[in-house]
This record gives sequence, C-alpha cells and structure tokens, in this order.
Amino acid sequence: MTEIKSAISIGIQLGRDVEPSLLGCHRLGAKGKSNDEIWNGPYSNDSFPEYAEDIEAGGDAAPSFSMMSEVARSLQITLVGGSISERSGNKLYNTCCVFGSDGKLKGKHRKIHLFDIDIPGKITFKESKTLTAGLDLTVVDTDVGRIGIGICYDIRFQELAMLYAARGAHLLCYPGAFNMTTGPLHWELLQRARAADNQVFGTLLCWILLFYRSSLFMLPI
Amino acid sequence: MTEIKSAISIGIQLGRDVEPSLLGCHRLGAKGKSNDEIWNGPYSNDSFPEYAEDIEAGGDAAPSFSMMSEVARSLQITLVGGSISERSGNKLYNTCCVFGSDGKLKGKHRKIHLFDIDIPGKITFKESKTLTAGLDLTVVDTDVGRIGIGICYDIRFQELAMLYAARGAHLLCYPGAFNMTTGPLHWELLQRARAADNQVFGTLLCWILLFYRSSLFMLPI
Repeated sequence: MTEIKSAISIGIQLGRDVEPSLLGCHRLGAKGKSNDEIWNGPYSNDSFPEYAEDIEAGGDAAPSFSMMSEVARSLQITLVGGSISERSGNKLYNTCCVFGSDGKLKGKHRKIHLFDIDIPGKITFKESKTLTAGLDLTVVDTDVGRIGIGICYDIRFQELAMLYAARGAHLLCYPGAFNMTTGPLHWELLQRARAADNQVFGTLLCWILLFYRSSLFMLPI
Repeated sequence: MTEIKSAISIGIQLGRDVEPSLLGCHRLGAKGKSNDEIWNGPYSNDSFPEYAEDIEAGGDAAPSFSMMSEVARSLQITLVGGSISERSGNKLYNTCCVFGSDGKLKGKHRKIHLFDIDIPGKITFKESKTLTAGLDLTVVDTDVGRIGIGICYDIRFQELAMLYAARGAHLLCYPGAFNMTTGPLHWELLQRARAADNQVFGTLLCWILLFYRSSLFMLPI
C-alpha cells in the first residue's frame, strides 16, 4: 500500500461545481487519482521483462495490479493506474489499468506508440526492443467521467486525442515518463494543446527522478 | 511603399541549407515575407466596410492590394500579404493575398472561422456582424515552398492545419491580430502545437498596438 500511495501524485475532481485545480482537488478530497508510467520498476529494456506482470492471471502473478485494485476499493476512488509492464503470452506491453471505486478493472490501455528515439549525444532508447505496441483505443466510463487513456508518447499524436474527444471523453489521461531532451520541448506544450484543441480536461503524470518535472493538470481553455 | 514596408515584420527563409531562424532570415536576406491581419485599416466593424477593397477589380479599387503586388515584384519576393478587408459584390471578407516574386496573385484566402467572442468585462467582438466567412482551404506553391494559409482564429482549429500538412505544406502562415484575453492563452501555444504536431514550419504575425506581442517563427520540433 505504501508503494502505491507514494506513486499516486495527482488527484482529479471533475465535479462541475468545484474549481478543478490540483490544489483544490487535494483539499476537497479527490474522487479520482492517477499515477505515472512504469512505476513498478526501473525504466529500462532489461527491467521490463523482469518486472512484467500477468494482469489476466491477477493475484500473485500481478502484485502491482492487485495492489492498485485494493487501493481503489479501500479508498473508494477511481484509479488510473499509471502504467506497468505487462506480460501476455510471449509478449510484453506498457499497460495502464483503470479501476473503479469497487476495485474492479474497468479498462486497460496498452501503449500504442512505442518510444524509439536516437539523438546522438542526447538520448537513445528503443522501447520496441522488448515491448509490443497496443492496437486499441481506450475510453473508460468512471465515476468521475469518461476518460480517454494514452501513455506518454501516445500524446505526441493529435489524432488519438481527437478520437477520444469525438467519443465523448471529458478527461484525457496520459501517464508519462518524459526525458530531458524531448520533455522541455513537448511535455507541457502537447498537454496544453490537447486540452485546448479538444476542449477536454487533461492530465499527464511523469516520473520525477532523472526525468522532467512532475505533474500537470490542464483545463480546456 | 513606405506603409507596406513598415507592415512587413518578418522574413522567412526556407532553404534547406540555411538555419531557418528569424534573425538568420533577416541577416541572409529573406526570399519570403509576410505581414499581419487587417493591416490596411482599424480593426472594427465600422471600419471594415470603409477600408474594404475590390481585389477582383484591382487598380485604384484595391490600393493596398496593388501596393503589395508592386512590393513583391520590385523586391522579387514571395509576399504573404497579411489580410485586408475585401469587398466582393455585397459581401465583405477578411482576406489574405499571396503574391509571387513577379507580383502576380498566386492565392487568396478568406478567413474561414470568424472571431465572435463575448467574455463579459473582458472582450466583446463579433466579426460576423459585417464579415462573411470564407469556405475554401488555401494552399499556395511559391518560390519559398508550399504554404498553407489561415487567418488568426483559423489557427484555433487543428483540422485545418492537418489538412494543409496532408496536402504537403512546408509552412503554415496565419496572419493574426490577437487580443489580451485570448492572446496570452492561445497565441504561442497554438502556433507551437500546429508546427510540432504537423511537422511544418509556422509563422503567425500580430498587430502590436493594443494587441498581444508581435511575431513568432516556429520550427517543426
């Protein structure tokens, strides 16, 4: 529980009569929470297989998944569970689970756009070395509204946000782990653009250690 | 000539072997230039009819249009002519003319998204009181590349930029006249987002007096 609670870094209150600001959410007691990308282990191709969980099996085969379910149930909150590495058959995915306030899994998003980058002298990382890309859009109806889910680099593609907005999403949630090369260029820009362009609320959660800033909550203005 | 030259506030150099920065453009001698929205008269519904020009008739019926053509020809530049109020039959448009380096009109964009705003205590303005919305997208092939044209509030709509990018535009140019209510929220954000999302160069020109900042040149990063 402690691990999960420490990973939960933002609260979201979508009640129409409440100022939907980050501080306001914490003060008023948020009904929905989220955490960040691959929070259950180191962010490396070596570690993805080691920490991968079998979400479909659940229980001891998916300890982080099970803990999130328990957190959502015991706190009676909607929980956008950041992302963890998932093993399904012989494939690995970067996967975000969304839990209802009863602790049940309401939706699961596998990162569609894997982050392969090679900027000499800056950053080289290829998620596609170990991970498989998801194929499906993920819209989840929750107690705090209809949420469209993306993971980190998914935010780079405006079409995904447009499709979510067209499907009636109130909130777009992109758990992320940006780096210091593309982070300063894109992290705030893309989240603000997605919220303003599609007139939805937006939130993007990031790792802090070695990565860029922490969290952001966007109003659709 | 003096009026036109003073209105030209940005130079654009799209040569692939030249750093496409604003200062670099001026230093190296830009091949393309642009100016801002409704630069030929006051920005008001009272003034739009008074300053409107018959572009199709040309000559003395369109003095700003004719001057821009002469500037483009004499300087041998591509000129994105900001916008002027245009009279066509019994209708008025907010119109951007693009001239080739021979002074000939290469394309004409009529503002598609008229800016009607009513924020009590902040700003109220309704372009639709006097102006008619344009219906067509405008992509122009010029000596400096393929340019997609929008006018000010047209930038608010991501679909227009996506269509221009899909049609092969290298540069999006949005002459604008932002205000101090929506300007700080949208002016830089939207231009950066359009350039980054669609991997095109972008420029947005603004009036300075009473309005928000002056000009911006965006790289597609």
